[in-house]
Amino acid sequence: MTDTKMILGMAMNDGYGALASSWRAPGVHADNYTDIAANIRFAQAAERGGFSFLFIPDFPAVRADVGRQTIRNILEPMTSLTAISQATSRIGLVATGSTTFQEPFNHARQFKALDVLSHGRAGWNAVTTSDPAVAANYGRTVASRAERYERAHESVQIVQALWGSWAADAWVKDKESGQFVDPAGLQPVNLQGRYVAARGPLAIPPSEQGQPVIFSSGGPSPHLLALAGRYASGFIGEVWTIEQGRAQREMVRRAAQDAGRDPDDIKYFAGLMTTVAPSVREGLDRRIAIAGESFPAQLPHLSAMLGIALGHDQLDRPLSPSQLAEAHASPMDPRSEPALEVARRGWTIREILAHGVIDYHPVTVGPAEVHADHLQRWFEAGAADGFWLNPDVFEDGVDAFVDQVVPLLQQRGVYPTDYPGRTLRQNLGVPEQYGLDPRVVPAANA
Amino acid sequence: MTDTKMILGMAMNDGYGALASSWRAPGVHADNYTDIAANIRFAQAAERGGFSFLFIPDFPAVRADVGRQTIRNILEPMTSLTAISQATSRIGLVATGSTTFQEPFNHARQFKALDVLSHGRAGWNAVTTSDPAVAANYGRTVASRAERYERAHESVQIVQALWGSWAADAWVKDKESGQFVDPAGLQPVNLQGRYVAARGPLAIPPSEQGQPVIFSSGGPSPHLLALAGRYASGFIGEVWTIEQGRAQREMVRRAAQDAGRDPDDIKYFAGLMTTVAPSVREGLDRRIAIAGESFPAQLPHLSAMLGIALGHDQLDRPLSPSQLAEAHASPMDPRSEPALEVARRGWTIREILAHGVIDYHPVTVGPAEVHADHLQRWFEAGAADGFWLNPDVFEDGVDAFVDQVVPLLQQRGVYPTDYPGRTLRQNLGVPEQYGLDPRVVPAANA
Ligand SMILES: Cc1cc2nc3c(=O)[nH]c(=O)nc-3n(C[C@H](O)[C@H](O)[C@H](O)COP(=O)(O)O)c2cc1C
Ligand SMILES: Cc1cc2nc3c(=O)[nH]c(=O)nc-3n(C[C@H](O)[C@H](O)[C@H](O)COP(=O)(O)O)c2cc1C
Repeated sequence: MTDTKMILGMAMNDGYGALASSWRAPGVHADNYTDIAANIRFAQAAERGGFSFLFIPDFPAVRADVGRQTIRNILEPMTSLTAISQATSRIGLVATGSTTFQEPFNHARQFKALDVLSHGRAGWNAVTTSDPAVAANYGRTVASRAERYERAHESVQIVQALWGSWAADAWVKDKESGQFVDPAGLQPVNLQGRYVAARGPLAIPPSEQGQPVIFSSGGPSPHLLALAGRYASGFIGEVWTIEQGRAQREMVRRAAQDAGRDPDDIKYFAGLMTTVAPSVREGLDRRIAIAGESFPAQLPHLSAMLGIALGHDQLDRPLSPSQLAEAHASPMDPRSEPALEVARRGWTIREILAHGVIDYHPVTVGPAEVHADHLQRWFEAGAADGFWLNPDVFEDGVDAFVDQVVPLLQQRGVYPTDYPGRTLRQNLGVPEQYGLDPRVVPAANA
Repeated sequence: MTDTKMILGMAMNDGYGALASSWRAPGVHADNYTDIAANIRFAQAAERGGFSFLFIPDFPAVRADVGRQTIRNILEPMTSLTAISQATSRIGLVATGSTTFQEPFNHARQFKALDVLSHGRAGWNAVTTSDPAVAANYGRTVASRAERYERAHESVQIVQALWGSWAADAWVKDKESGQFVDPAGLQPVNLQGRYVAARGPLAIPPSEQGQPVIFSSGGPSPHLLALAGRYASGFIGEVWTIEQGRAQREMVRRAAQDAGRDPDDIKYFAGLMTTVAPSVREGLDRRIAIAGESFPAQLPHLSAMLGIALGHDQLDRPLSPSQLAEAHASPMDPRSEPALEVARRGWTIREILAHGVIDYHPVTVGPAEVHADHLQRWFEAGAADGFWLNPDVFEDGVDAFVDQVVPLLQQRGVYPTDYPGRTLRQNLGVPEQYGLDPRVVPAANA
């Protein structure tokens, strides 16, 4: 047990949950997608559990498989988070915004406005967006990674400079003398990049946390690490084992150090998907009942991960002794080793799939102890500073986690019993920053 | 008295008021600019008065005279209106958004999201933004009017097409069968303009009013009329006399007709600035006490409007008989005729200026009858379908209008006693629309 506690964040999306077909689960309102009251309910539950932030991914395009599947984007991140800000008071509000498809001045203004009206709780997940369907919504095609990241460096730099362009002491607002603002404290930033530019200043004074916090998310490519290392205070990764988590967390911390910052200035979050149930058996049954129809289509993928042939007729049988002997984790997919472990415990193919072994993040299924053990183990092993939770079904999954898992983590002393501070920055334990970080040398050309 | 009632909208800006130095007025909190609770208070007061909409102008740049003057933009329109939407239920929410400095896909998504989460109350004041300081915040210079309006036509067309791209009956959400949405009802729009383009579809179902309402505002240049005629359901103008209002309203109605629509499909609003006080004398004193320091600088302008020399030593004297004989309304400024009328009533120069004769809109000062008379006269003369009110000081000016003027208008039968409908579209009395208006032929090249 250390003095540092783990930090929790929660995903928010179209209002249903991380599990396929969660919109059809019992008790779920099919119209949650357009019902902001639903997302407010989930946000308030997360706040009751002391979560430091909500984090909303965003790929603004209709996916090819929509139909039986839902939209899997929130209606629109900034407006949804703003509405949520009015019904919460402590939880952080992190929205994804594309450096490729939004003007830096618009990003700077909207995020800082949200930061001010939420009293210091806003964050920006700055992504470059490599999805061709999204690019088409802006009449464009996907640029090379080099170009996308060059524009991203320019954008984030301009945004942070604009955030700092209203000097912290410029707002005089002295009714007696009649001085509203000191114009000398509102200076242009005059940044001209290759792709984007802005003069400034931005007419928004500091929020309670100064300015919004920047997040990065993704695989640790050199491009993303260079961006995150310079600017991000939070990083959300996809890792399936403690070893992967430790390695990736180290890369992210080193990237911050390489950029001239302190490695503790950036917090690493591992994604996790949760099904809280009275027992593992009931948890698996819940997942089969809700998402089972999607399992048969996953058989080829599971076969490839385990290196053995799996037929539809085997869905309700475990691997045979000869299959177990033959099976080996595919080096092509980082989820293979944990999947093989589940298979070795004797579960049937359907149950293996119900464990979520092919999901986007590790999946924990069962009573509170299962989740608390996983979180504590990873945290104490240095695999993460915290976790980004994706409940299987928002409607009851957030409450279940908050009411059952959170108290256990608190008893074990690994999770705070109250918010450490009032702002997102304080709750993440990252330093004050206003404007650009003077320690950071901008990327060339940016 | 006709069956049709006048429609009222209210301005919202940086939280202080339409009068210079209103931030220093007694009872005004100097930090209203960043206090969303203040704007919520004003919005709720307007809603109590049955106002159909809030309308937020936007020129996102720091003005040269900021210092003793305030910012005169709301922090950020979309986030502010979203916050307000959560604390109101009937009033419409119209934000200015620049067709030049925002991607149409982003506009389409944010405005329709606001429309959905406000249950059919959103509107978009689509402007081309000709301010060089704003352009510089996007690293650009101001394009020619032709180019700005060509892009505007493309943008609004793309936005409306995206709004209609989720077919009204596409959202099946049948938990039993497992069909969430009918993919056939989500079709690309594939619009490619010269300046902007989008594939779509936009993944947002209809709001209670289908889609947001479009507003135009400005002087009736042929370019603006061509845009408003095709797309706008509301038009806010600057006119100082009933004759000017009738003429401009006719131009706007004719523009709609020329575009293939019904002239009643577009409502014309005349701007008005109000000071409600127990008497005219007390109203003028209130304006002098708050804004009087700005009057001396207005002397040259007033001189030019009246065609006579006015000295600082004359501030507390009325025009002399010889000045009155010499004075004539300048044809260069449409405010000159009403200014001369005020002068002829024998007010001192300071009092003439306190009448707001050089303000952006006509100013009414005094007890409820003064305001009600003005509104009723203009409305019954066909000079406007309604009015866009700019209270001198929000902190007490909204309540004063709502508590004193609104009941009088209701007694006179010219203003509704309750909201006519639940959506902005219904409260404006404009027809249903989803997607593009099939009657309208897009502009060439757009
Ligand atoms: C947890 C997580 C969340 C992500 N969220 C988004 C997102 O919301 N929008 C997006 O465009 N990309 C998102 N990404 C993708 C990454 O930002 C990144 O684009 C991706 O890893 C591809 O890397 P590249 O940009 O180097 O090609 C996310 C990735 C992860 C792991
Ligand atoms: C009541 C009113 C409100 C306006 N609001 C805005 C605004 O918020 N933002 C803006 O850029 N222009 C605004 N305008 C300016 C007009 O949209 C228009 O740009 C202006 O009349 C110049 O005309 P032009 O575009 O044909 O050059 C407003 C004008 C009026 C009369």
